[in-house]
Amino acid sequence: MTDMTLLHALSDDNDFAGRHNGPDSAQQKIMLETIGVESVEKLIEQTVPADIRLPEPMQLDLPQSEADMLASLKKIASKNIINRSFIGQGYYNTLTPNVILRNVLENPGWYTAYTPYQPEISQGRLESLLNYQQMIMDLTGMELANASLLDEATAAAEAMTLCQRAGKNKSQAFFVSNDIHPQTVDVVRTRAEFIGFEIITGNAEELDNHDVFGALLQYPGTTGEITDLTDIIEKAHAKKTLVTVAADLLSLTILKAPGEMGADVVVGSAQRFGVPMGFGGPHAGFMSTKDKHKRTMPGRVIGVSKDAKGNQSLRMAMQTREQHIRREKATSNICTAQALLANMAAFYALYHGPEGLRKIGRRVHHLTAILAAGLRNSGIELAHERFFDTLTLNTGKKTAELYQKALDAGINLRKADAQLGISLDETTKVADVEELLHLLTGNALKASMFTADIAADEYAAIPESCRRTSEYLTHPVFNSYHSETQMMRYMKKLENKDYSLTHGMIPLGSCTMKLNAAAEMIPVTWPEFGALHPFAPADQTKGYDELATNLSKMLCEVTGYDAFSLQPNSGAQGEYAGLIAIQRYHQANGDSHRNICLIPSSAHGTNPASAAMVSMKIVVVGCDEQGNIDVEDLKAKIEKHRENLSCIMITYPSTHGVYEEAVREVCDLVHEAGGQVYLDGANMNAQVGLTNPGFIGSDVSHLNLHKTFCIPHGGGGPGMGPIGVKSHLAPFIPGHVEHAENDQQQYAVSAANMGSASILPISYAYIAMMGEQGLTEATKLAILNANYVMERLRPHYPVLYRGTEGRIAHECIIDIRPIKEASGISEEDVAKRLMDFGFHAPTMSFPVAGTLMIEPTESEDLAELDRFCDAMIAIRQEIARVQEGEWPLEDNPLVNAPHTQVDLLEQEWAHPYSREVACYPSAQTKDAKYWPTVNRVDNVFGDRNLICSCPSIESYIED
Amino acid sequence: MTDMTLLHALSDDNDFAGRHNGPDSAQQKIMLETIGVESVEKLIEQTVPADIRLPEPMQLDLPQSEADMLASLKKIASKNIINRSFIGQGYYNTLTPNVILRNVLENPGWYTAYTPYQPEISQGRLESLLNYQQMIMDLTGMELANASLLDEATAAAEAMTLCQRAGKNKSQAFFVSNDIHPQTVDVVRTRAEFIGFEIITGNAEELDNHDVFGALLQYPGTTGEITDLTDIIEKAHAKKTLVTVAADLLSLTILKAPGEMGADVVVGSAQRFGVPMGFGGPHAGFMSTKDKHKRTMPGRVIGVSKDAKGNQSLRMAMQTREQHIRREKATSNICTAQALLANMAAFYALYHGPEGLRKIGRRVHHLTAILAAGLRNSGIELAHERFFDTLTLNTGKKTAELYQKALDAGINLRKADAQLGISLDETTKVADVEELLHLLTGNALKASMFTADIAADEYAAIPESCRRTSEYLTHPVFNSYHSETQMMRYMKKLENKDYSLTHGMIPLGSCTMKLNAAAEMIPVTWPEFGALHPFAPADQTKGYDELATNLSKMLCEVTGYDAFSLQPNSGAQGEYAGLIAIQRYHQANGDSHRNICLIPSSAHGTNPASAAMVSMKIVVVGCDEQGNIDVEDLKAKIEKHRENLSCIMITYPSTHGVYEEAVREVCDLVHEAGGQVYLDGANMNAQVGLTNPGFIGSDVSHLNLHKTFCIPHGGGGPGMGPIGVKSHLAPFIPGHVEHAENDQQQYAVSAANMGSASILPISYAYIAMMGEQGLTEATKLAILNANYVMERLRPHYPVLYRGTEGRIAHECIIDIRPIKEASGISEEDVAKRLMDFGFHAPTMSFPVAGTLMIEPTESEDLAELDRFCDAMIAIRQEIARVQEGEWPLEDNPLVNAPHTQVDLLEQEWAHPYSREVACYPSAQTKDAKYWPTVNRVDNVFGDRNLICSCPSIESYIED
Repeated sequence: MTDMTLLHALSDDNDFAGRHNGPDSAQQKIMLETIGVESVEKLIEQTVPADIRLPEPMQLDLPQSEADMLASLKKIASKNIINRSFIGQGYYNTLTPNVILRNVLENPGWYTAYTPYQPEISQGRLESLLNYQQMIMDLTGMELANASLLDEATAAAEAMTLCQRAGKNKSQAFFVSNDIHPQTVDVVRTRAEFIGFEIITGNAEELDNHDVFGALLQYPGTTGEITDLTDIIEKAHAKKTLVTVAADLLSLTILKAPGEMGADVVVGSAQRFGVPMGFGGPHAGFMSTKDKHKRTMPGRVIGVSKDAKGNQSLRMAMQTREQHIRREKATSNICTAQALLANMAAFYALYHGPEGLRKIGRRVHHLTAILAAGLRNSGIELAHERFFDTLTLNTGKKTAELYQKALDAGINLRKADAQLGISLDETTKVADVEELLHLLTGNALKASMFTADIAADEYAAIPESCRRTSEYLTHPVFNSYHSETQMMRYMKKLENKDYSLTHGMIPLGSCTMKLNAAAEMIPVTWPEFGALHPFAPADQTKGYDELATNLSKMLCEVTGYDAFSLQPNSGAQGEYAGLIAIQRYHQANGDSHRNICLIPSSAHGTNPASAAMVSMKIVVVGCDEQGNIDVEDLKAKIEKHRENLSCIMITYPSTHGVYEEAVREVCDLVHEAGGQVYLDGANMNAQVGLTNPGFIGSDVSHLNLHKTFCIPHGGGGPGMGPIGVKSHLAPFIPGHVEHAENDQQQYAVSAANMGSASILPISYAYIAMMGEQGLTEATKLAILNANYVMERLRPHYPVLYRGTEGRIAHECIIDIRPIKEASGISEEDVAKRLMDFGFHAPTMSFPVAGTLMIEPTESEDLAELDRFCDAMIAIRQEIARVQEGEWPLEDNPLVNAPHTQVDLLEQEWAHPYSREVACYPSAQTKDAKYWPTVNRVDNVFGDRNLICSCPSIESYIED
Repeated sequence: MTDMTLLHALSDDNDFAGRHNGPDSAQQKIMLETIGVESVEKLIEQTVPADIRLPEPMQLDLPQSEADMLASLKKIASKNIINRSFIGQGYYNTLTPNVILRNVLENPGWYTAYTPYQPEISQGRLESLLNYQQMIMDLTGMELANASLLDEATAAAEAMTLCQRAGKNKSQAFFVSNDIHPQTVDVVRTRAEFIGFEIITGNAEELDNHDVFGALLQYPGTTGEITDLTDIIEKAHAKKTLVTVAADLLSLTILKAPGEMGADVVVGSAQRFGVPMGFGGPHAGFMSTKDKHKRTMPGRVIGVSKDAKGNQSLRMAMQTREQHIRREKATSNICTAQALLANMAAFYALYHGPEGLRKIGRRVHHLTAILAAGLRNSGIELAHERFFDTLTLNTGKKTAELYQKALDAGINLRKADAQLGISLDETTKVADVEELLHLLTGNALKASMFTADIAADEYAAIPESCRRTSEYLTHPVFNSYHSETQMMRYMKKLENKDYSLTHGMIPLGSCTMKLNAAAEMIPVTWPEFGALHPFAPADQTKGYDELATNLSKMLCEVTGYDAFSLQPNSGAQGEYAGLIAIQRYHQANGDSHRNICLIPSSAHGTNPASAAMVSMKIVVVGCDEQGNIDVEDLKAKIEKHRENLSCIMITYPSTHGVYEEAVREVCDLVHEAGGQVYLDGANMNAQVGLTNPGFIGSDVSHLNLHKTFCIPHGGGGPGMGPIGVKSHLAPFIPGHVEHAENDQQQYAVSAANMGSASILPISYAYIAMMGEQGLTEATKLAILNANYVMERLRPHYPVLYRGTEGRIAHECIIDIRPIKEASGISEEDVAKRLMDFGFHAPTMSFPVAGTLMIEPTESEDLAELDRFCDAMIAIRQEIARVQEGEWPLEDNPLVNAPHTQVDLLEQEWAHPYSREVACYPSAQTKDAKYWPTVNRVDNVFGDRNLICSCPSIESYIED
């Protein structure tokens, strides 16, 4: 051993990259042999075009060990000051039940699952999301709810377009009342501007003066005032105006439901149902509406159907508005949801049940009433006397002084020019109220001095007509799990139904289901990150500021951009924000007319959808048979639209999984015509350290932090879609009304300035622990893994789209069409049969119908890759038996897949293959079988019999 | 609503007791009706004798909400100062891999499981414990290891008695070398004194001068010095002396194994394999020995057998020394293990693999060598030059000054009179070594100045003959899971095999498997509790001191005692410590001759075993047919042994689950004769708040914190058995050599002063959140639940032992003997059949052979109780079908239970009952089936073919 290697070894206490990456060097050697290439470096040379390879390594800090990263991140987190917050304005302190914290938010069984596109292996979270929908329907008094949107502000923006689609008023104007939370107004304004809607503002009572297709009201208002909206809505309906009400979920435990006042749409946030504020997110936004508007509902709706054996089963019933499906015809900016947070909120409702929630609502309200009485008693004027949990104090010239006085006592209030806002919540104690009274009045007032009035009429502050009389959460599921023991078991029962990364590989092309390391997840539930209000004063948020600064710097280095906005809450929202930046840039240059967006035919569906959301005209550019952009066609299209060219949207490597060699030429051509290049970051996992969008020549990209940068998919969200831009676009990234110098439009795309701030530590931790070498190695191994799988499958399945040297990028498309042609077995059959082998299916029919796209990621090791390839090859052999007539097309293990325990229960086995072939087709399944809990779900039946609420117990028993 | 109820409601933000307790008031009403009693209070009156009911409520602080408890406990924890520790002496900093932290230590799927007595539903942790045994065997070079002991010191004490049992030297003397850790010496001394062994001390080289049955050596020694023990052991063997070596596990990655030097027994601690120091515990102690000594091995040994279908399956192969089985013939003080911590250590070894462990060992050693070279270079004298990770510095008069200098820099060293000890570990960095050098030498020395020598001969500090050449951890299981993804999946795979409280009720009589609330578990993994060395200076441990003071005060209030020792690490150790206190008290009174221990025939087996451990003579007192102590017989026995009476050991309520009415009389009779009363705290769950041992008249008790006070069972440990005493016994509770004024014998029973300190927060949190009312309510509901189950089962099963009014305490014994007589179906068949219904079996054949003892605890709600009772009744009906000849005795769902997926796989179903009856005998099993993973395990085969190491992969494949 040399001196130097010794010193090196002594410092070598960090093997995180070796833990994150699956294959070790011995495994790599075997894989290289199979591929037929001498080294990983050589493989990369054959795969990634030389002219886009970075000339020098990324400049990142040396990688930290897990322990060092946690220590340094703790230091950053500690710079956040956690005052008691009474700011409200849509974000409230809440008590996350510890049993939910530990068993859901901190449990990979929940957080590593994918979106439940494959219902047979997702019944657990489908049930929980159905509970969530039921909870929203019940509390808002509506007939249908979706399974979450991104936040309250974007839900309001989505509601606006819903009103426009669903309504009959042909105006292009939308009314926004004056008592909407400012951050909601800003997001709605952004959305309206680029669609071309006019926003009219005024007091809710003035709505009747305007001819608008829709209106957004708030209940209680941002000042806390409660208004009976019944008459206002009725008058609006007379003018064919649809009315959206932004409502507070906790208030609805004692307030009349907006649905009972006639609302057409109700939106809001489920944050205060047990989800930490986290400096703004992630939380579930909600939306509910009337049954007749169901076909215009954005987002995902969970519904009840039956499976191939007639047993009740759940599925995603509707996602018809989703971007990737409707492409340019999509009418929403929603491509994901906040499943993990929606589940937490649903579990919170189950945990407390209707009685418990009502108790919390009442207590918060009574404490607020005591506070109001005490303030009044000391001569402080309230801006209104009708409230649930929020008071607005007309503090006039004393505002700044009182605000500061509270601040000095470690208390944050909401401040306006001459008013202070105070919102109480479930964490508020009698002592807090007394302290507030003392601070604000100077008098030592006791709560007991003000209880008599409340005892006499406990709801005096709520207008008679706004008091809730209807029941809610009457379904047994909300009334069964109130002991912690039963709660834990229910959550575990659902968890155990679902396939997640804890069971095996989820080889979803384009989704990059890589490791979400425990060390990355641990900081997420630190109170220093969780308990901060997004609108806390700047000197209390220095930890998050430092985190954001550091992370942005890292991401700039990784992407080659000059600035980052961490605001967008999803990939689709990132695209949207990026296109807005482009349009605002053109506007600033006097090029407002530039509105043509070029999109290759191979693009991900969100690209045209996002472009449509900013009123661009989409011009499709053709692709050759390898999926590469047809440069000649591109030239022609540019020529034709040169004057009005806004931008091109490309994905790199392409959605076909190939590094296009002409990419720099494409960028140059567009730039030369005055256009901008939007590079979709979905496939960033195949770039990091080898090339980057900035170097390639792009102007703006979003990153899916939930793909390349290790934020878990949460069973269908949260996601994060920050955008990077070159410096000329930096002035046009989203701002935020609460963080701005003035109250002009800030072009926010999300309710909180830093989006889902509390999950940013995940990506930070990943980059900090991997460092330049680790990240680059990960990219190389992602490519190695994909090529290995491709080479193993190629003798059995046709592989679409390989590069000039026969290599693919980080994912592999196999073509089932000729196989189906020959055998009758479809790509769906293959996908479902994989479940029997203990796998989640690859991506189906994207980007090409009839194909499967496989992305193994760098985190899977050779053993798991082989298990997958062996399964795929065994399935191909099964197909051959069908093809050869050994098994009939209507009865074979493929079309009957997935098999369940119900199959095994059959006393007589009537199939031409054995029970063992059905359920234990591989050695691994005998060792640790993952069981789909229902047989193949019947989509047609579900579509015809749309039920999107919790089914009655009787209906279960019937089954 | 009145004013007062309003104020009350406003303060009512704590419903923890309502979460901990299962049945709500509506459910209680139903249960009372079934029992036939008007109120819970009335039931308690009928159950608990009036003369032992407490005259007034316990004086405890008002209950805290979960959030308030966590906040206040965090404040206490923050008073611990976490310096960098180089103290060593058996406790080392370690990096718990976060994937293990999150998925094992913080996961109820692992921590709520019970001891794997039922192998069919425990294959996951049995596999992990087998891995642990293999790891210990490999590293120590021995043929057999057990599945963990309590800590290194007690393992050494156990090894002493093993040497005496297994050896052929008939001396009563045991040799303890001078370089044993002081805390080990003290525990061994305690054990020897009360057995009657003489302890001889001296340098290891002097062993040959003595005629002893056994010897304890240490390797490396407590000063860090490494000695080749081969010759010493060979000479000892010539004199028929068996040699135990206390070894450091990490050192064995590069040091020759003690087994290769001829050791007969190897003991130590697996703490530094990823288990936080936690101020002393819990950690797994280990013991390995030669195959020929297997029948004298204390503790549990996991072995390989096969199941009813011939498939490989694991089980607890040996626990022959365990106290509760061997009663007064037991020769060990071991009744539990440290399963959770042993599993963590095993997973740590899997995670790193042999290469990774060797790398850690080498790095630690090289850093130590650099430190040594730097110190030497500056003229500091080392006490020895042969070391692995620990140096002893002859600092002479400068000792205090240097020690303080390090302290000022936030560094703890080990201090002796004129020496300083420094132990490095896997967390030590080059910078730490350089800082130490700077602090101790005053010179700015760089590590690089001292690497040349090491590079030339990296093991120069290890005697040639002590360098490791043999391989270890060659089994595939240690070489397969090195990516975090695969590691997570392996742990989840094992978790999912095992039944835990996350699946359903574990109604084990006497074991009190109640809720382990998430809020109670969260503080356990706070670094403020985890990272503290047990021998850190007193001013750094004030958080733990406050915790201990508060908890002791709470426990005194709950038990009616005057003082508590938190040292005992298990119930058995608590009994042992309590009996020593009694004997030392008698000795102090000049009554050394008092050595008779009265034990009722119904006693738990640990009672006579513990009494035997302190050389008491056991005199059995008869019981009447209801299981109550026969007072006349007691009087007679007292009379006969009056002069020599030491004590009586009783359990209350009795092991038969009845509150004996004569208990106070029993206490008085014993006291009158000069004896002491030991009240076993196993059934404390039926006393809290209603009565208590002190009030009843007892002098000393242990509490099973892992039963009544919510420490989870961890799949077979940790446990905690603190003892409470009346003031006259307080001078005789265990002390600790590191916390004593002098170095006289401190009568320690455990290696660390506060035992398993880091799990004490669990019990603290429980009591703090429950308060007086909650705790008392829990006791009442435990009694209610037990009586409800009893009344539901009584029409179907004979119930043994009810009180005078027909009530039982907190558990219920049903008699299977007459049923077996009539049908041939045994209690074991019932227990195994319960698995098919998704339950863990109740306690079998304790305290009466042929019975089942059911303890539902207060945490189960009516739904789960009914599910259990329904299953038991359905099973009784199945038995009836056998009894009536409908099903043959040799082929029915009872004798074939448990059924597995392998059963369902059978193409031809040859049984007289259906597949559905076999595997889905209830509606709940169709909704969420828990699957036993093997069929009934063949104990006879396992006993005949004892294999206690990891089976080869081939052997799996054969199956």
